[in-house]
Amino acid sequence: MSNIDFMKSLTQSGSTKAILLVMDGLGGLPRELGGPTELEAAFTPNMDRLAREGSVGLVNTVGIGITPGSGPGHFGLFGYDPLEHLIGRGVLEAVGIGLALTEQDVAARGNFCTVDQEGFITDRRAGRILTQECARMVSLIDDITLPGVEVVVKPVQDYRFVLILRGPGLSSALNETDPQKVGLKPLKIRPLDGSPEARKTADLVNEWVTRVSELIRSQHPANMVTLRGWSSEPGLPKFEDVFKMKAAAMAVYPMYKGLASLVGMTLIEGLKNIEDQLDALRRNWDSYDFFFVHHKYTDSRGEDGNFDAKVKEIEKVDAMIPKILELNPDVLVITGDHSTPSVLKSHSWHPVPLILSAPGMTRANPDVTSFGESQCLRGALGQFNASDLMKLISAHAQRQIKYGA
Amino acid sequence: MSNIDFMKSLTQSGSTKAILLVMDGLGGLPRELGGPTELEAAFTPNMDRLAREGSVGLVNTVGIGITPGSGPGHFGLFGYDPLEHLIGRGVLEAVGIGLALTEQDVAARGNFCTVDQEGFITDRRAGRILTQECARMVSLIDDITLPGVEVVVKPVQDYRFVLILRGPGLSSALNETDPQKVGLKPLKIRPLDGSPEARKTADLVNEWVTRVSELIRSQHPANMVTLRGWSSEPGLPKFEDVFKMKAAAMAVYPMYKGLASLVGMTLIEGLKNIEDQLDALRRNWDSYDFFFVHHKYTDSRGEDGNFDAKVKEIEKVDAMIPKILELNPDVLVITGDHSTPSVLKSHSWHPVPLILSAPGMTRANPDVTSFGESQCLRGALGQFNASDLMKLISAHAQRQIKYGA
Repeated sequence: MSNIDFMKSLTQSGSTKAILLVMDGLGGLPRELGGPTELEAAFTPNMDRLAREGSVGLVNTVGIGITPGSGPGHFGLFGYDPLEHLIGRGVLEAVGIGLALTEQDVAARGNFCTVDQEGFITDRRAGRILTQECARMVSLIDDITLPGVEVVVKPVQDYRFVLILRGPGLSSALNETDPQKVGLKPLKIRPLDGSPEARKTADLVNEWVTRVSELIRSQHPANMVTLRGWSSEPGLPKFEDVFKMKAAAMAVYPMYKGLASLVGMTLIEGLKNIEDQLDALRRNWDSYDFFFVHHKYTDSRGEDGNFDAKVKEIEKVDAMIPKILELNPDVLVITGDHSTPSVLKSHSWHPVPLILSAPGMTRANPDVTSFGESQCLRGALGQFNASDLMKLISAHAQRQIKYGA
Repeated sequence: MSNIDFMKSLTQSGSTKAILLVMDGLGGLPRELGGPTELEAAFTPNMDRLAREGSVGLVNTVGIGITPGSGPGHFGLFGYDPLEHLIGRGVLEAVGIGLALTEQDVAARGNFCTVDQEGFITDRRAGRILTQECARMVSLIDDITLPGVEVVVKPVQDYRFVLILRGPGLSSALNETDPQKVGLKPLKIRPLDGSPEARKTADLVNEWVTRVSELIRSQHPANMVTLRGWSSEPGLPKFEDVFKMKAAAMAVYPMYKGLASLVGMTLIEGLKNIEDQLDALRRNWDSYDFFFVHHKYTDSRGEDGNFDAKVKEIEKVDAMIPKILELNPDVLVITGDHSTPSVLKSHSWHPVPLILSAPGMTRANPDVTSFGESQCLRGALGQFNASDLMKLISAHAQRQIKYGA
């Protein structure tokens, strides 16, 4: 029995409420030997108290020594085995801008790029054109039709758009066309398996790309496209069916809304910042049981390599905690989807510090005085895999029956 | 290779002796933030010394965040993957009262209940009739015969009995008949799959229930039955074959004797209390290699929500330790099959504190001064799954060869 089916068989409805607060890329590393990590350097009196009074530990969202992408990191936290459910970037971009996908859809993420007169790429991101320019470019190509399928093109952000082909007999087994280097031409689409569906889809997409090129070749700076992340709607079991909790997602970035919607969470729309998210949490408190709150900028500052700015983002979230606690959640989990140490300027494989606060339900960490990587080592939860996190949340929310008599 | 086959390939005979002392529902929670758990509050000088001198840790008997029933909890401790081997209540009740099951048997747990004149249930447990009344009721129905199968009905405890159908071509894929609410009629037995065996068994059981109803409908308060927990003898590999240790079980309660007998342990009969168990341990010391000693009342008092009474039960067991140590076991493990925090009045998912005492064989826990949940966090064994416990016991008993050359 899969982990998800197992949980489905054990969970039950209830009136408790749980919050999963994700600081993207939370985990970090010290700048110098013996120094603090970003989280340890941050002034976080509220999370420190929760760490002392709740249980803490370190979570591997995919597995020990594996660096999670945003998709797998979040699916792990949501209780879905990220090794079983790898979702393509195309689908993520599509659902992230609110496109409802059907089982017939094949989606790709597109980039506008710049090519010279011979078709060689000179800028893979077309000078990182702004979203409004991207929208204008999409308006030039969004009425291209293809035989037997519906074609949807939508701008996403900056130079990125999403392409969806909708119809019977399509396949996402296609190669990516970005050659990953300037000075090369975009690759032709090729089928990655011998199926007639993949051949048919490759032919259709090549035709679409040719038409796009004809329509925009004289534009500037974006005059060509590349396509990647071919994928189909994964048809995941719904979070509410599995965990018996009606779930709402309070995320600012499209990607994270997309991840949440793929497991059936309701997206609270129009949130621009942490205050909006807090407000949305309050407004929707009575309507849902599970609240996924996502803060992006801890990861962004880590990716920038800006230790101090990442510290500040963590402190911003800490300042939000007392207002969250006013809602009296039965379970509050604070963690990240992966580590993004600013010294590495990238996602990393280091396990992510985690607080599980569920008053009256959690075991003490007598040796823990604050929230940080080293302290979490001594925590009551130990080091564990994210596949067990939703079990812990559901158990502490008293929404789980015992296994066997 | 399954865990059991793996162990079977590594274990060897020997002359060492191991005791697994299970305090049912041992793990607990503090009554108030920062306070001690039941185990931490208990005066346990003997176990404290064993904790300091041996290795301690925390064990998840089924898995992180999962609340074990008694069956899965014990199977985990015995080294059998409880997710692979879920034993139905019918079989547990049957073996628990000493009925030896055959491979042809299908067993259910029965409840006597009260129905009104139209057959609607008014009390699902017939006023919790006493065991002797249950025995009288069983005597009214135990000579019902069915074509082609042997029928066994035996009283268990209070309003509970066990029904066994023995014969070729039977199936336990049947629904439960208790509608779980008063005001409804007992459900008809239906086959849960399309097999002829399930259909045949369903027909037989429905006929049996009709005959029962005719025989007891004018009795009071028990005048009808419900059936649940349909199951077959699981045919588990025998403990002695797997671990090369002749095992004896010293348990007072039928359920735990039943669990031990399913893995082939010899049941030492007629034990009424902890003194009997200690005496049985002494008497049988030379005849066995592995001794499963079960103390029920830690769980019972936890289920009652009686913190202080659970503390007293733990202290009672602690007082028994010096006499156990007089036998000089090579390995003594003290743990529970799950947690039953008295603040929750139920089984819980919290990992269970464990002492592994094997003089000369165990790693030190330099930070451990006593036996308790928080102390076990700092222990040499860390947090681990019960599937690894019998490996540790067998290793410390020097009954295991190395894996590979």
